[in-house]
Amino acid sequence: MKIRIPALLVAAVSVLAAVTASAGDEAPRYAPDGRLMFPSGYREWIFLTSGIDMSYSKIAASIGHSMFDNVFVPLEAYREFQRSGRWPENTILVKEARAGSQKGSINRNGKFQTADMMGVEAHVKDSKRFPAGWGFFEFQGEEPAVRIPEAADCYACHRQHGAVDSTFVQFYPTLIGIAASKKTLAPGFTP
Amino acid sequence: MKIRIPALLVAAVSVLAAVTASAGDEAPRYAPDGRLMFPSGYREWIFLTSGIDMSYSKIAASIGHSMFDNVFVPLEAYREFQRSGRWPENTILVKEARAGSQKGSINRNGKFQTADMMGVEAHVKDSKRFPAGWGFFEFQGEEPAVRIPEAADCYACHRQHGAVDSTFVQFYPTLIGIAASKKTLAPGFTP
Repeated sequence: MKIRIPALLVAAVSVLAAVTASAGDEAPRYAPDGRLMFPSGYREWIFLTSGIDMSYSKIAASIGHSMFDNVFVPLEAYREFQRSGRWPENTILVKEARAGSQKGSINRNGKFQTADMMGVEAHVKDSKRFPAGWGFFEFQGEEPAVRIPEAADCYACHRQHGAVDSTFVQFYPTLIGIAASKKTLAPGFTP
Repeated sequence: MKIRIPALLVAAVSVLAAVTASAGDEAPRYAPDGRLMFPSGYREWIFLTSGIDMSYSKIAASIGHSMFDNVFVPLEAYREFQRSGRWPENTILVKEARAGSQKGSINRNGKFQTADMMGVEAHVKDSKRFPAGWGFFEFQGEEPAVRIPEAADCYACHRQHGAVDSTFVQFYPTLIGIAASKKTLAPGFTP
């Protein structure tokens, strides 16, 4: 009996350490110069939605090709949104763009996603770090990304049209109803 | 000191229990009569891909409306596929269909997913339970689902055209390259 408790303890503490490491890996990390590190594990985060060729102007976003957007968020932030209808500090939303294709394998109609990556962007909540509360980043490959300046259109558009706290929750099917029921929709937001 | 180790032990064992419970929740569960229970946590599984209005015949799948398909798999099965290029026993792939819309909020082009659910299907690997190795299920709401008979087209089509072991890995962008490098593509499969 003397040896069994310490052995179990060691095993259990190892699990604790692994769980902690996993949660930590999902938080935004920055290089010493403030650039955002590439969130390498985002494909294992919670999937929020995908769209195809979405555009907010009357001009189509893509000419002659199709592009899917997939949006992911870490589990911890997702759970907090389910609980409160709000994003916690250090929430990071990642949008991955992939080429869509119609012809491939046995597909004949509609579009499917391909292995052809067309870009990764991030939207990070950090009230201390970013004057606007959120920062936008666009990655080039997996290099750390410089923050997009706050004068860029994306900030004003998200602030003006985001359903919740500068984010487009109106396009996240599993969350928009929660925001409505928790009454965290932006003032004046209309679906 | 006497009290500290048991307290830590209790805390650590609680975490172990929680981790085990979480993994268990992802395995397929069956009613006593063999119907598959609705996989209620699938939106927190690993996202494999989404497609829109995909059809394997020359006739469009949808007339007058659009539909997205989102495919999810539990983390454990995803990790095993990354390691070996094969799906382990008890793999469950869930396909969720959602209505797509073009007009909503500030969107003007392309399509986004809506809260309008149009169906949930599952594809489950269980060599002991299903003669074909895999079983297909189509849920009505969240009621347990009866297995689709093996004479249905879905079995033959998946067996004939699936890139890996009766599954359409050719449409899963993060996995098709793994299957190619692990040499687990079905004999005669052509992309």
